[in-house]
Amino acid sequence: MTYRHRHLLGIEPLAPSDITTILDLADRYVTLNRASDKHGDALAGRTQVNMFFENSTRTQASFELAGLRLGADVMNMSMQASSIKKGETLIDTAMTLNAMHPDLLVVRHPHSGAVNLLAEKVNCAVLNAGDGRHEHPTQALLDALTIRRSKGRLHRLTVAICGDIAHSRVARSNILLLGKMESRIRLIGPPTLMPAGVADWGVEVFDDMRAGLEGADVVMMLRLQKERMDGGFIPSEREYYHRFGLDAEKLGYARSDAIVMHPGPMNRGVEIDGTLADDINRSVIQEQVEMGVAVRMAVMDLLARNLGKPMQTARS
Amino acid sequence: MTYRHRHLLGIEPLAPSDITTILDLADRYVTLNRASDKHGDALAGRTQVNMFFENSTRTQASFELAGLRLGADVMNMSMQASSIKKGETLIDTAMTLNAMHPDLLVVRHPHSGAVNLLAEKVNCAVLNAGDGRHEHPTQALLDALTIRRSKGRLHRLTVAICGDIAHSRVARSNILLLGKMESRIRLIGPPTLMPAGVADWGVEVFDDMRAGLEGADVVMMLRLQKERMDGGFIPSEREYYHRFGLDAEKLGYARSDAIVMHPGPMNRGVEIDGTLADDINRSVIQEQVEMGVAVRMAVMDLLARNLGKPMQTARS
Amino acid sequence: MTYRHRHLLGIEPLAPSDITTILDLADRYVTLNRASDKHGDALAGRTQVNMFFENSTRTQASFELAGLRLGADVMNMSMQASSIKKGETLIDTAMTLNAMHPDLLVVRHPHSGAVNLLAEKVNCAVLNAGDGRHEHPTQALLDALTIRRSKGRLHRLTVAICGDIAHSRVARSNILLLGKMESRIRLIGPPTLMPAGVADWGVEVFDDMRAGLEGADVVMMLRLQKERMDGGFIPSEREYYHRFGLDAEKLGYARSDAIVMHPGPMNRGVEIDGTLADDINRSVIQEQVEMGVAVRMAVMDLLARNLGKPMQTARS
Repeated sequence: MTYRHRHLLGIEPLAPSDITTILDLADRYVTLNRASDKHGDALAGRTQVNMFFENSTRTQASFELAGLRLGADVMNMSMQASSIKKGETLIDTAMTLNAMHPDLLVVRHPHSGAVNLLAEKVNCAVLNAGDGRHEHPTQALLDALTIRRSKGRLHRLTVAICGDIAHSRVARSNILLLGKMESRIRLIGPPTLMPAGVADWGVEVFDDMRAGLEGADVVMMLRLQKERMDGGFIPSEREYYHRFGLDAEKLGYARSDAIVMHPGPMNRGVEIDGTLADDINRSVIQEQVEMGVAVRMAVMDLLARNLGKPMQTARS
Repeated sequence: MTYRHRHLLGIEPLAPSDITTILDLADRYVTLNRASDKHGDALAGRTQVNMFFENSTRTQASFELAGLRLGADVMNMSMQASSIKKGETLIDTAMTLNAMHPDLLVVRHPHSGAVNLLAEKVNCAVLNAGDGRHEHPTQALLDALTIRRSKGRLHRLTVAICGDIAHSRVARSNILLLGKMESRIRLIGPPTLMPAGVADWGVEVFDDMRAGLEGADVVMMLRLQKERMDGGFIPSEREYYHRFGLDAEKLGYARSDAIVMHPGPMNRGVEIDGTLADDINRSVIQEQVEMGVAVRMAVMDLLARNLGKPMQTARS
Repeated sequence: MTYRHRHLLGIEPLAPSDITTILDLADRYVTLNRASDKHGDALAGRTQVNMFFENSTRTQASFELAGLRLGADVMNMSMQASSIKKGETLIDTAMTLNAMHPDLLVVRHPHSGAVNLLAEKVNCAVLNAGDGRHEHPTQALLDALTIRRSKGRLHRLTVAICGDIAHSRVARSNILLLGKMESRIRLIGPPTLMPAGVADWGVEVFDDMRAGLEGADVVMMLRLQKERMDGGFIPSEREYYHRFGLDAEKLGYARSDAIVMHPGPMNRGVEIDGTLADDINRSVIQEQVEMGVAVRMAVMDLLARNLGKPMQTARS
């Protein structure tokens, strides 16, 4: 099993074999996490630091549990309040932390590209836990693992990604990953929430849920990211739910064994019907969370094995 | 030693033998905590998550130290700010966390019954660290351990609980526990701070401190919970101290070997005289804190032994 | 190797041999921190509690990593919000925590002397992580280690400390330490930012950077502590930089091999030129951070060895 990169900054630099390597190892960690003794030593002696410049209870919890269960010394740094208030730059913060010799640095940041910038400055392995509208690679990997365990494969599936594509790093990382694994991707949403240039992405675009869901194997709903819509069009929740919210009726257009996904946290009654979200025959939303811990364990394990080795490039 | 429950949601479902089992094991952990090597492995490989929907530095610290010293992987989730802001429901939060496979979930919540609701939804053991005005079982257990170590027994003692009974989950859990252990309970406080229906509780009720303290073995003061008095009568602190604050003069009516307790944090000069609180001949307030860590270690140890076993009912 | 104290409250009570003992052990921890397995067991079984009554992401991170890497059970208590809001006194908080049997207590507090007061009340070893304008001993020790590793010695060096001396506990601890180790100290800054009574400190005082830097081996810049200047004179940042900010031109007056230090976080363009701060031929600012973790490991290791032994005095 080889993963040929120093960091995990996004899905973009990964080869299909890298993705398969991560998912295969993650499968083993799913089993470990279900056991009564969940504690291993793959990261024993290593220091993991979680630097979240943007609040995210669930993503931070997932990375923290992953590190603790692998035996790492794990430290959380909440960066919203303190250092930034004192006027320190991102690079100063990164260099300071780097001098403390972390091995794994998990970073979430509100600006696209901030995590890549930081990775150029430090000696440790950097994991992108979401940067602006750019990438959220562990979310795409956990979605892939969930799909693969449910459908038995990642290729030749029809995956519909629905909702606020424009503001979603989750959508972006998923489109990159599913494209590499040869799935067919459909984007469904109002034209105002489609990113510029989507016509060149090699995906099908729909503004009608029923047409877009027709024959889909996987229905991936997105959170309406009101907090990222600065000044632009904000749809009314009621109208949005009527046209783009997933309910049993609309899901009827997908394949009868189609699974329903959501990265969480959900706006029930906005992008998804609450009853459908809880229907364990269709919804794999809780499994996504479970796969999240396992995927993060796999990635950190693989990155730690590469620490100190010469890598292809410092930027990948 | 057997403790027959899946959770610790309150004192109410416990039998006297459950209580004795917890206190006996806690006695052993008192000794461990006083040693230079305080680290055991009863929870090695286990994941403990502390979810505090209400701030409590000291209770959270007590549970966190208890878990760390038993070798658990311990994660704190401060729930005030983040997820709730995003509009996620309590149940969504619980189900998300459940999917990460915690073994022990310690929950504090401002609403009575919220912890029981949550326990019905998750697969792990749930510990109630205080829910609204309902219960705070580890506080009652640590109080019981403090009394038992000081008085040599829990039965046939006269215990006076004084102050703001109506808003106090501490009082409620203590009344339940001391009743089960066959102590005589007196409640002392202004009628406005007595709960409705107290006449049916099988306790003696006083609105005069001197009459109520007469012959008491244990004097348990409560914190004046101004933050929970929404709209109702709020006494002036000065008048409250005059009538219901414990000082040496009023304590003179209790037995000469009566001990003074307070769950903390104290309002000195409101419900208790500061000098009396610090008098190590009468006050066991610091010992209560010490017993708190030991009791929480005992409960988590016992609950972890039951994980995966068939229990009597899922709700107890 | 012996360190003869129960606490580390300041540099003032230390003998030169104590300082040498700490720095010698810290040198070994520098090596450990650079290894891939950074985890030791000098504090295994011990409980370390970090109580920060004042925010400090980097200092808290340094102490936390130091404790984790030595195998301690480490707990952070952020004291700004919670307990203080409930009106609890510092001593009540300390006594409560003391009852939970920590072994090492790391305290930062905005009031000078608060840490010493607290140390008198508890049974564990107390480390001062900065108290008001009084002392910040681990900062002075990490500065000393940085200087010793760069210059090969601590005696007979000319050290210029520049800027806001009056509000700086860093300056105070450094002056004490460098004086004990027989270095020559110069203080440079505007007379309004010099402490009262500086004429009696046995140091040279300058209000001109060029004159003060002449022949210096070490140039130690301080952060402009606007947050501590209550009501007094606050210089304009632009004028301050012009007269007292360190740039290549002013540094030209120091020895050609002089090193540049700053305790961080830096105000770039206020007390130091950003390019100079990043010049790895002159600036040792990142090394200071690295030495910080090692020095804190050394101090905690030495203090833990003394736990339970009879010490010279309880106050040192």
